Amino acid sequence: MTRYNMASSSMFSAWTMNGNALAPKVSRIINDCSKQTYKSLSISASAGISHSALRRGVECRALNGERKPSFSLGSKFQLEDVIEAQQFDRDMLSAIFDVALEMEKIEKNSTGSNLLQGYLMATLFYEPSTRTRLSFESAMKRLGGEVLTTENAREFSSAAKGETLEDTIRTVEGYTDIIVMRHFESGAARRAAATATIPIINAGDGPGQHPTQALLDMYTIQREIGKLDGIKVGLVGDLAYGRTVRSLAYLLAKYKDVKIYFVSPETVKMKDDIKDYLTSKGIGWEESDDLMEVASKCDVVYQTRIQKERFGERIDLYEEARGKYIVDGDVLRAMQKHAVVMHPLPRLDEITVDVDADPRAAYFRQAKNGLYIRMAVLKLLLLGW
Amino acid sequence: MTRYNMASSSMFSAWTMNGNALAPKVSRIINDCSKQTYKSLSISASAGISHSALRRGVECRALNGERKPSFSLGSKFQLEDVIEAQQFDRDMLSAIFDVALEMEKIEKNSTGSNLLQGYLMATLFYEPSTRTRLSFESAMKRLGGEVLTTENAREFSSAAKGETLEDTIRTVEGYTDIIVMRHFESGAARRAAATATIPIINAGDGPGQHPTQALLDMYTIQREIGKLDGIKVGLVGDLAYGRTVRSLAYLLAKYKDVKIYFVSPETVKMKDDIKDYLTSKGIGWEESDDLMEVASKCDVVYQTRIQKERFGERIDLYEEARGKYIVDGDVLRAMQKHAVVMHPLPRLDEITVDVDADPRAAYFRQAKNGLYIRMAVLKLLLLGW
Amino acid sequence: MTRYNMASSSMFSAWTMNGNALAPKVSRIINDCSKQTYKSLSISASAGISHSALRRGVECRALNGERKPSFSLGSKFQLEDVIEAQQFDRDMLSAIFDVALEMEKIEKNSTGSNLLQGYLMATLFYEPSTRTRLSFESAMKRLGGEVLTTENAREFSSAAKGETLEDTIRTVEGYTDIIVMRHFESGAARRAAATATIPIINAGDGPGQHPTQALLDMYTIQREIGKLDGIKVGLVGDLAYGRTVRSLAYLLAKYKDVKIYFVSPETVKMKDDIKDYLTSKGIGWEESDDLMEVASKCDVVYQTRIQKERFGERIDLYEEARGKYIVDGDVLRAMQKHAVVMHPLPRLDEITVDVDADPRAAYFRQAKNGLYIRMAVLKLLLLGW
Repeated sequence: MTRYNMASSSMFSAWTMNGNALAPKVSRIINDCSKQTYKSLSISASAGISHSALRRGVECRALNGERKPSFSLGSKFQLEDVIEAQQFDRDMLSAIFDVALEMEKIEKNSTGSNLLQGYLMATLFYEPSTRTRLSFESAMKRLGGEVLTTENAREFSSAAKGETLEDTIRTVEGYTDIIVMRHFESGAARRAAATATIPIINAGDGPGQHPTQALLDMYTIQREIGKLDGIKVGLVGDLAYGRTVRSLAYLLAKYKDVKIYFVSPETVKMKDDIKDYLTSKGIGWEESDDLMEVASKCDVVYQTRIQKERFGERIDLYEEARGKYIVDGDVLRAMQKHAVVMHPLPRLDEITVDVDADPRAAYFRQAKNGLYIRMAVLKLLLLGW
Repeated sequence: MTRYNMASSSMFSAWTMNGNALAPKVSRIINDCSKQTYKSLSISASAGISHSALRRGVECRALNGERKPSFSLGSKFQLEDVIEAQQFDRDMLSAIFDVALEMEKIEKNSTGSNLLQGYLMATLFYEPSTRTRLSFESAMKRLGGEVLTTENAREFSSAAKGETLEDTIRTVEGYTDIIVMRHFESGAARRAAATATIPIINAGDGPGQHPTQALLDMYTIQREIGKLDGIKVGLVGDLAYGRTVRSLAYLLAKYKDVKIYFVSPETVKMKDDIKDYLTSKGIGWEESDDLMEVASKCDVVYQTRIQKERFGERIDLYEEARGKYIVDGDVLRAMQKHAVVMHPLPRLDEITVDVDADPRAAYFRQAKNGLYIRMAVLKLLLLGW
Repeated sequence: MTRYNMASSSMFSAWTMNGNALAPKVSRIINDCSKQTYKSLSISASAGISHSALRRGVECRALNGERKPSFSLGSKFQLEDVIEAQQFDRDMLSAIFDVALEMEKIEKNSTGSNLLQGYLMATLFYEPSTRTRLSFESAMKRLGGEVLTTENAREFSSAAKGETLEDTIRTVEGYTDIIVMRHFESGAARRAAATATIPIINAGDGPGQHPTQALLDMYTIQREIGKLDGIKVGLVGDLAYGRTVRSLAYLLAKYKDVKIYFVSPETVKMKDDIKDYLTSKGIGWEESDDLMEVASKCDVVYQTRIQKERFGERIDLYEEARGKYIVDGDVLRAMQKHAVVMHPLPRLDEITVDVDADPRAAYFRQAKNGLYIRMAVLKLLLLGW
């Protein structure tokens, strides 16, 4: 069973009006509707709105519930929502990374920036994920924006009183300009995006997607190695359940001459759907049980945590799996001088602490890159290019 | 037993000093005390305060613990705290709605506003209510103000260590300019307001009041129907326990030629206190079990959720009650073209989802109006007129 | 066993570079490293950083893990972290109090200040302490800074997935400019400070330290009595477990001609380590069971709460202890006109409510002073002098 829909999702639409100051998603909705019988459409960002206009707007939304297929105009594609890694192609990734690089400069002179001043972001978290939440909130505030926070969104939703996610979104979108949502159910972010007239960012939906993590992983490889074509990447650890390595493999397949090595305990091997996909895209991959040899060949050793909860009562299997492939001083010595170690964090002991002091330990820089990627995504969703 | 004190509460005082930049409540306290033997009074908002002056201030407060009866000067009444729906008369409501209308314009150009820049609001929630909290916090931030948030206020209060509410308020008022409080005990907001030298907004105190909900309901009727005199309103669903419909009936009684229809299951009928009050004010009302007929006559069909927790173990009675009066396509077809459906949200299935696309479905606009009303109230409490 | 390390901690370093706009701690780290073989060092606050420079930075940190012994240049000592009360000497306290006094003026005209605009503070609380958190967050916002909040830091740390505190700090320091940390383990703040390249403030680490509380207590005595030399202080209540009275005794020993009276139930008497320390510093102290007599002699009566949890199942001993020394109207009448009652709050009934109205009740002013002290500390850590 394929967890990801490998077919390219179409979440983008062309943007042809120049000089429009409205947020991308809001503008697109107006544009779509203006082709209907209604001459004007009220949306929450426009001033001087009458309620009767609002009602026509609701009708228009009802008529135009389906989104248009989207396409990209060179690097000037329009970002409306960030829902899943698959929505990005090579050009989009490259364009987003350019913006992230700009964001690095802004963040470091952070007292100066007010790019998103007056904008409000709501972090609507149906389960706590403090690390991800702080990263998004920092990104928003580094750009001068403001934040509404909740980590107990379950309380005012279905779990508590039976309200649907759609109703919650339609209420919350009245309070904010963009919603960063974390949910326990796969597909929740897509449902929210289909309802909302403001942009939605998926900050993880259950076993499903966590697209900004995938973006920051790719961005880190580019920043550390200087390229994405022609790289060799070793994916190590839990390849069966780790969504980061699965997304990474998927995105790497968009680049040329990439080679991927899978190094994992027998119990958590990479599943066939990803392997088949890589093969179909002409990406070379192989499985190995020799971490040292893989480390000596790769540009990137991407280590992951073995998740205890996947093993149920078989603690013995868990203990065997977690101890099998450790990145330590020996692995470092096998690695090339330009190569790096990455990890989505948190780590336990799958990377030993003595590795931290080596310049090739890139995982804390990787975490920091999450800030720049999220700044870039917020900027693109709220202001466009 | 009447849940509301029907006697008009006196929470306002006249405001005669011109050009005073102090917040209304703070100014009133100075004014009261300056008539005492003390020439100057220190309050937390004044600069250059000495501690000995502060001590005199405390003595003055002790002497003048009782508030003066308040009165209104045309629309220039002074708002000190927002504690209960009954504190508002017709003129005040009209004046607040004028400000809320201004707020709609500000919010829609939200990047521009900094009316409350430098002001701090604390949301002191003794029980979580994410929807209400986000609405207040959005309102404050849309006006350029800042927010201190807590949803676990119980932790630093009586429940945890035995501190009184009064002590908590006297500590927190040192950190902020205004407190939005949610509490599990009826009357808690009034006690807080009696203690605090800064404004208190009641965001719900147990089974008691939730005055900004009552204000936003009335504001929505005026915005949607264009008037409050002469309207016909159907109150549907849980009329026994729903505090929103009780407050609404109470406030509607301030207007002329209003007619109210009660449509509810037998188990949750409107109580006699409100019926008697309406009669005493000359407001026509009747009970009906024919939702279709009521819908065809009314300007507003105000639907509410049947609350399961009111039925204890009698799930059978709950199921019977909740299914009895549903607003669906048939009800819509019976309604007049200018009429609207309202609901305090969250809803379960007492309004079917297909109703949402109809322009007369006003409940999400109603939720949004909560933002404007809260912006207005914050502006009035902190800056005055 | 001595709970405090009485030896002076060395947390400060000299500050000799003029006109440097970097935060103190960050600047010190650059300075240290520039003396090594590396010519430049990248730190998170500097612009235009390359990743290879970052790597050198990491190496430099690895080589220079140990901090230099610190010293003070008159009042121009440099504050890098706030970890424990013992790090402050008399000159430092005096200098901090001068800044706090400036902060009182700023706070009272709070709309004007933007001293820390563009700076981000994270409140990383591993256990909730709403009062302390709100005080820090208010301080930051009163100075124009921004805040990232978490009260469930345990969720993204060791307790949840086994991540070390050090890893958490290295991730969070990428999102913010300063961390205010509350932890359940004694010594956690010191470990965080050793890891972080940004300043750490200890907001309480288990049974250990809560240094800003100690600072605000001393500041309150100076503000209320006008001096710290030559004062007489009665410490009342739980002297065995109360960390505030222990820190206070320790800091008072830095002043001349101080006299301390201990008034406590037999079960919670001041421990020998503090008594011995006072004696070694030539500070007079005595134990008394006559609160009235002590009150009549003292400048400050510092009352504390008897903590029920210290008595386990001996509720009888708790009840006896808590009722023994109450500050009430009789005690007030015994006190001198210039003297004050202090309390770290929250209080139960160890100070009766009728005392509140007396100008000598200083405990709510004391709580407010916590705001000024925290503003001062944030200013010093982020901007220096």
